[in-house]
Amino acid sequence: MLVRTEKPWPLNAWYQAAWASEIEDKPFARTLLNEPVVLFRDAGGTVHALEDRCCHRATPLRLGEVVPEGLQCGYHGMVFAGDGKCVVIPGQDKIPPQARVRSYPVVERQEFIWIWMGDPDKADEAQIIDYPWNDDHENWPHKHGMYHVKCNYMLLIDNLMDLTHIPFIHRNTIGGGNQMGQVNATMDVKKTDMGVHYIRWMEGIVPPPTYQKGAGWTNETRVDRWQEFEYIAPTAVTQWTGALEVGRGAKQERTQKGGFSLRLWHCATPETEDSCFYFWTPANGYKPEDAEATEVLFQEIATTFVEDLEFLESQQAAYDRDPDAPLVDIKHDAARLPARRAVERMIRAEETRPAAAAE
Amino acid sequence: MLVRTEKPWPLNAWYQAAWASEIEDKPFARTLLNEPVVLFRDAGGTVHALEDRCCHRATPLRLGEVVPEGLQCGYHGMVFAGDGKCVVIPGQDKIPPQARVRSYPVVERQEFIWIWMGDPDKADEAQIIDYPWNDDHENWPHKHGMYHVKCNYMLLIDNLMDLTHIPFIHRNTIGGGNQMGQVNATMDVKKTDMGVHYIRWMEGIVPPPTYQKGAGWTNETRVDRWQEFEYIAPTAVTQWTGALEVGRGAKQERTQKGGFSLRLWHCATPETEDSCFYFWTPANGYKPEDAEATEVLFQEIATTFVEDLEFLESQQAAYDRDPDAPLVDIKHDAARLPARRAVERMIRAEETRPAAAAE
Amino acid sequence: MLVRTEKPWPLNAWYQAAWASEIEDKPFARTLLNEPVVLFRDAGGTVHALEDRCCHRATPLRLGEVVPEGLQCGYHGMVFAGDGKCVVIPGQDKIPPQARVRSYPVVERQEFIWIWMGDPDKADEAQIIDYPWNDDHENWPHKHGMYHVKCNYMLLIDNLMDLTHIPFIHRNTIGGGNQMGQVNATMDVKKTDMGVHYIRWMEGIVPPPTYQKGAGWTNETRVDRWQEFEYIAPTAVTQWTGALEVGRGAKQERTQKGGFSLRLWHCATPETEDSCFYFWTPANGYKPEDAEATEVLFQEIATTFVEDLEFLESQQAAYDRDPDAPLVDIKHDAARLPARRAVERMIRAEETRPAAAAE
Repeated sequence: MLVRTEKPWPLNAWYQAAWASEIEDKPFARTLLNEPVVLFRDAGGTVHALEDRCCHRATPLRLGEVVPEGLQCGYHGMVFAGDGKCVVIPGQDKIPPQARVRSYPVVERQEFIWIWMGDPDKADEAQIIDYPWNDDHENWPHKHGMYHVKCNYMLLIDNLMDLTHIPFIHRNTIGGGNQMGQVNATMDVKKTDMGVHYIRWMEGIVPPPTYQKGAGWTNETRVDRWQEFEYIAPTAVTQWTGALEVGRGAKQERTQKGGFSLRLWHCATPETEDSCFYFWTPANGYKPEDAEATEVLFQEIATTFVEDLEFLESQQAAYDRDPDAPLVDIKHDAARLPARRAVERMIRAEETRPAAAAE
Repeated sequence: MLVRTEKPWPLNAWYQAAWASEIEDKPFARTLLNEPVVLFRDAGGTVHALEDRCCHRATPLRLGEVVPEGLQCGYHGMVFAGDGKCVVIPGQDKIPPQARVRSYPVVERQEFIWIWMGDPDKADEAQIIDYPWNDDHENWPHKHGMYHVKCNYMLLIDNLMDLTHIPFIHRNTIGGGNQMGQVNATMDVKKTDMGVHYIRWMEGIVPPPTYQKGAGWTNETRVDRWQEFEYIAPTAVTQWTGALEVGRGAKQERTQKGGFSLRLWHCATPETEDSCFYFWTPANGYKPEDAEATEVLFQEIATTFVEDLEFLESQQAAYDRDPDAPLVDIKHDAARLPARRAVERMIRAEETRPAAAAE
Repeated sequence: MLVRTEKPWPLNAWYQAAWASEIEDKPFARTLLNEPVVLFRDAGGTVHALEDRCCHRATPLRLGEVVPEGLQCGYHGMVFAGDGKCVVIPGQDKIPPQARVRSYPVVERQEFIWIWMGDPDKADEAQIIDYPWNDDHENWPHKHGMYHVKCNYMLLIDNLMDLTHIPFIHRNTIGGGNQMGQVNATMDVKKTDMGVHYIRWMEGIVPPPTYQKGAGWTNETRVDRWQEFEYIAPTAVTQWTGALEVGRGAKQERTQKGGFSLRLWHCATPETEDSCFYFWTPANGYKPEDAEATEVLFQEIATTFVEDLEFLESQQAAYDRDPDAPLVDIKHDAARLPARRAVERMIRAEETRPAAAAE
């Protein structure tokens, strides 16, 4: 089933709201977890997130503009500071205290804009995922992408937790080559505090088209290929994949020069129950000095993920049509199932928290 | 809140269904107050309004054609007279009395087509708003406009009852110039039997772009500018606005030659709870002999009202998302609130009428 | 009213799912009776129909491909045989018995693909309608058409059961000429086991444009014209129409050489309650050796049926708006009403069947 919990996501968690580069000195609207949010960068460069609805006549604040005091509604000119308080009502001296909109805790870090949609008192910056590669353009040059996908965010996580889809959906990009060799990779799965970690090895395999293009390999080359993924609930997946020629001892040491190596950030922020924003960024770890290689990698990944979209959106439509119809788990759900359980634990913890005596 | 009454509009009231020029000798369909209506002009020139649904197989009558006996359904040829009675069933001699469709009282007057959607026995033509300027093309030349707007009709009335939006939304047309000068106009509000009347004065102000274009003024000119509005529940707003150069005594006598002066008819007829037809017509009172000035005025107003549409439709979407979220009234709602109360009184009067002993 | 029964259609009946030529060796998806179905032709040429939803993660099977073992899901490669059983899970030896999707009985016959959406044990091929003209390309050359129509399938049957619409909707094609002559045709209606049969005669009438074009007639010609229709519940209508010059004794013998004569297959398979697939094929019985005449006939019918679509879809929208509003039956509903009763009998028989002791 698609959702086994009452609520579709935990509220008390940091969510990626945007790439930092998306937020400029004008309103930027995005619906997150079913709530309309407007983000903006103030004159000092600080990013704020407000409810996208003026408290006067419900006008979306995205139709306004950034002014020195904050974000000004475009209808009658009321201005809201980053903390949500109304600080200007044109032509009116006294501002009533109820004149305010909701504001959300925001942190800008490592090229991400993180937002906290739950109880602001619980927002702890120490819980934000550390992803240092975003800051290391010298060794891990990268470009950011985002797709708006009409599926529940967990269908995207499912996709990343079962890579046997690669030789089927992605046969023309990262999944070409030996189909059954990729299906039958060894799979080592470990539960973590926040989700699940796995590594798959395909030894002595022919490299897929994307790898050949990147590393200058051919169909005659044989490589030891790995796929290391970690799901960090509720929405992030980090990936380190690559390959070295057979005989170079990849299983002992993956950080050797040469071969093929990339890191990928995936994040599926819910827009609604049936749609999400898929943030992704591939970092080129095999030819970091080669800007052309970084661009080619970005284009390859962009093409690959488009191949997934038709499947994810069709899956969602099929679920919506008959959400209670039974489904069958198979062997390759070994990482997918603990990922689902991890996010369900987070949601259940919130649901039962008010009743907990120790809270 | 958007609606404080059980029903969204009064039924026993005259509504503008169309401009007279829209109705010709062929069916013209328009949904009014959630009811599908088809209007047509018969051979004698009289306009009729019928339910847009044949009583035989529910076929919309708009797919038919006007014939001498009335409006003929395009499917099997049944003909309905202006009073809704079926007068022809091809190939059948006897016409059963239940073969009829609903007809609505209609009045054509002063270039308007008025329709009564409630109890026909209560339809009193004396209640129709008098708007003589529509008939006076010599002194008040004008052209008619109509916009289909995806918002509740009262959001449009709200818009017209708080003109502090003009220096924000319309800064490039009628609201340019001194922003705070326009916000801080004097405001004289009076309740009326059917709604609310107000007049705003901005003395010694720089004229906005539309006025400069019309009167040949510049940014150096200073004028005394007025905005006189009246809301007549449920859907009409009449407007007389203009300016004269400082020193000409505008406050004592506004009907002097020269300067800038226009009359505007606004009417927001509900299509559904979430959409309406915005009928408007600007009459040129400052250069009535100049057809070019009438055309320029029409284009300026057409552009100005388009600026409102994005706000009105976004507001509606924000209301629909969370209709019960609280809102805050401010000083500038001084005319908007009595307008709301006027239409609410009309609706409540209908709701309680059946219980009234004196009825 | 549109539907007088609890359910919109009988389940235990053969429905036309497609024209045989539509199904090739790749997945073909079509929603039938509210169920998403995927059809495909296997390597041996046999057509199968499966539920369009993989039992693993709900992925539509239409995104996959036909392989020797059956239809392969495009996501993780599971393969389903024509009987719905999963026969391959890549990388997994044991296939659990619950790994299966629903399969539907399918029969390919006389250029139709028939499907049975109800209880498979009741699927009796002997109940399939015999339409031999589809197999007789020498005497009845024809081409197949299909329109996707946004109306309940019974509105299309209604249309075919009351031909007095022809001189109104189709005045430019098959309904041109003497309007009241066509309305006032004699009408002979007979109930049948599975529906209703009728024949209409218009004697000494001017032939309509399509007939003139086909037979080389002019507005001066006078013909005896017949329209013979049979509704076979729930969805099929067979038609034989034509005309011979006055004096040739058409009423005694319609199968004479010359004149104008065509057979038409109509079938309205429900997609949803509010939409259907209209399968049709006109067979040229008047110049069977003339391929150009067959093509012209097909184009005339294609144009004629497009004229109906606007009416059918507008009717549906009018019903949906107010499904309980009363309607009035007229004289020309003489065949339409028994057709409605025939399908309603089929639906009611299914509804009461579980309670029947003799079942």
